[in-house]
Amino acid sequence: MIYHNFDELLAQAAPHISSGRTLAVVRPEDPNTLEAVVEAKIKGGLNSILVGDKNKITAGLRELGQEPDSFAIVPAASDEEAVFTAADLVNDGKAHVIMKGLIETPILMKNLFKERCNFRTGKLISHVCFVQIPSYHKMVALSDIALNIAPTLEQKRDILENAVGAMLRMGFDKPMVAVLAANEHVSDKMPETGDAAALKAMNQEGVIKNCVVEGPLSYDLSISPKVAAIKKCDSPVPGNVDLMIMPNISAGNILLKALVYSAGAHRAGIVVGGRVPMVLPSRAAVAEDKYLPMLLAAAAS
Amino acid sequence: MIYHNFDELLAQAAPHISSGRTLAVVRPEDPNTLEAVVEAKIKGGLNSILVGDKNKITAGLRELGQEPDSFAIVPAASDEEAVFTAADLVNDGKAHVIMKGLIETPILMKNLFKERCNFRTGKLISHVCFVQIPSYHKMVALSDIALNIAPTLEQKRDILENAVGAMLRMGFDKPMVAVLAANEHVSDKMPETGDAAALKAMNQEGVIKNCVVEGPLSYDLSISPKVAAIKKCDSPVPGNVDLMIMPNISAGNILLKALVYSAGAHRAGIVVGGRVPMVLPSRAAVAEDKYLPMLLAAAAS
Repeated sequence: MIYHNFDELLAQAAPHISSGRTLAVVRPEDPNTLEAVVEAKIKGGLNSILVGDKNKITAGLRELGQEPDSFAIVPAASDEEAVFTAADLVNDGKAHVIMKGLIETPILMKNLFKERCNFRTGKLISHVCFVQIPSYHKMVALSDIALNIAPTLEQKRDILENAVGAMLRMGFDKPMVAVLAANEHVSDKMPETGDAAALKAMNQEGVIKNCVVEGPLSYDLSISPKVAAIKKCDSPVPGNVDLMIMPNISAGNILLKALVYSAGAHRAGIVVGGRVPMVLPSRAAVAEDKYLPMLLAAAAS
Repeated sequence: MIYHNFDELLAQAAPHISSGRTLAVVRPEDPNTLEAVVEAKIKGGLNSILVGDKNKITAGLRELGQEPDSFAIVPAASDEEAVFTAADLVNDGKAHVIMKGLIETPILMKNLFKERCNFRTGKLISHVCFVQIPSYHKMVALSDIALNIAPTLEQKRDILENAVGAMLRMGFDKPMVAVLAANEHVSDKMPETGDAAALKAMNQEGVIKNCVVEGPLSYDLSISPKVAAIKKCDSPVPGNVDLMIMPNISAGNILLKALVYSAGAHRAGIVVGGRVPMVLPSRAAVAEDKYLPMLLAAAAS
């Protein structure tokens, strides 16, 4: 599928979600998280298992005008117990996504990474952000703009493969991957250009599969068919990118914010590389952005 | 002045330019450079002294329908001679900007940096790119998105001061400077956030003058009044940025390209930090973009 926007992606993912994808939500004890859970259920048909302080969760649901009995609640007395319970739900096949509620991200991660949770897969944990840019003809994914600060070549390979895996599960066609840099030439003064060339070579040699990797590529060359036509590139990626791999977190974060705040883009991100996708909601998210990542994560599960 | 767009900036700069600012153009022996020279003269009232192969320059001007006698041409037989002649014109007060024609940038720079040219000032040579973003209420400058790959703190100070100096000469109000990073907190895992805090401190201590520096700042916090209002920042910079200092060239270049190719921004850049501003034209520039940097450089001279 070529997804032109989030609506198309979610419409395609709907059968998959309604076939029984369920989120395990760790400590949904704040209005922000509960609101997202309720919206995902009403608007997206997505079920959640709410793990945490039962009294707080019950009271919170009532405040949102919901009947607590229509939600699955599993009591947990501490952060650690809530994380372990969510992991058990995943390992028992009862949940397919883990979502963060009122718990600090480092505490969630520290507990989830313990061996008993069976969450790590040997891959780096990375963030994939899906972006709908008004001036581009289809959705594009950026990674990593949030979790990994200055990834090595080995880590960039995981970031790339994590994102490609999620996109294929979500129904995207074989992704066209651009490894971004300041230009399209390899320079020993810009190590990220060497990493980009290496990722391209690994793709050509069949080590990195199920996608087409091109790099180093400048942003304009990756996203503008006009620039790609002028530069006469012998690759299907320029002007047609599905996934952009970022050289570092500052470049990624600044790009995402420019797309959202200066180009009117709409975005939602998920965390991949673990046993199942994760959702780390943003406090600043507007209403519809709260449940969008939950649906994306379910689609990627 | 607050410049809302390039037109306002150029209208304000016009008296300064017509008061006799002149460009020394090194080897304008290609149609691209000559076209820019002709347009800058006709549309911007900006005079150039053309230094290079007189026969080629004369023939080129005729091909553009121009009368060669109405242009100042100074013959120079080699790259080195052309650069030295341009530098002499600057040192004699006859030219106020140096522009690159049909000469490789490294050769231009190597010769210009020789002691006899008296071009270096002890400051880093840096690039300032002016951007007119449709969704932002005024012009903003980015630096460095083109020349300095991974600037140190000391180099970032030069980049910042070079840009502020050029902006003040161009008539901008005291610039509001954001030192960009992935977020607004100092982290020892992200050295650029420490550099940003250091530049802010140097500004507060009066070492960096004639501007207000804030950092580290995320892109959205620097440019969005709405985000700035939510985060309740005690600084005049958030939501009101005039100059963004970039953490590295890949972040800067990717940001600029995203603004141009995804947010519909219009841009033009100049090179500062030397005795006079420089113009390094882009081959890919569309017609109006060819002479815009020449007018900006004249305004910054």
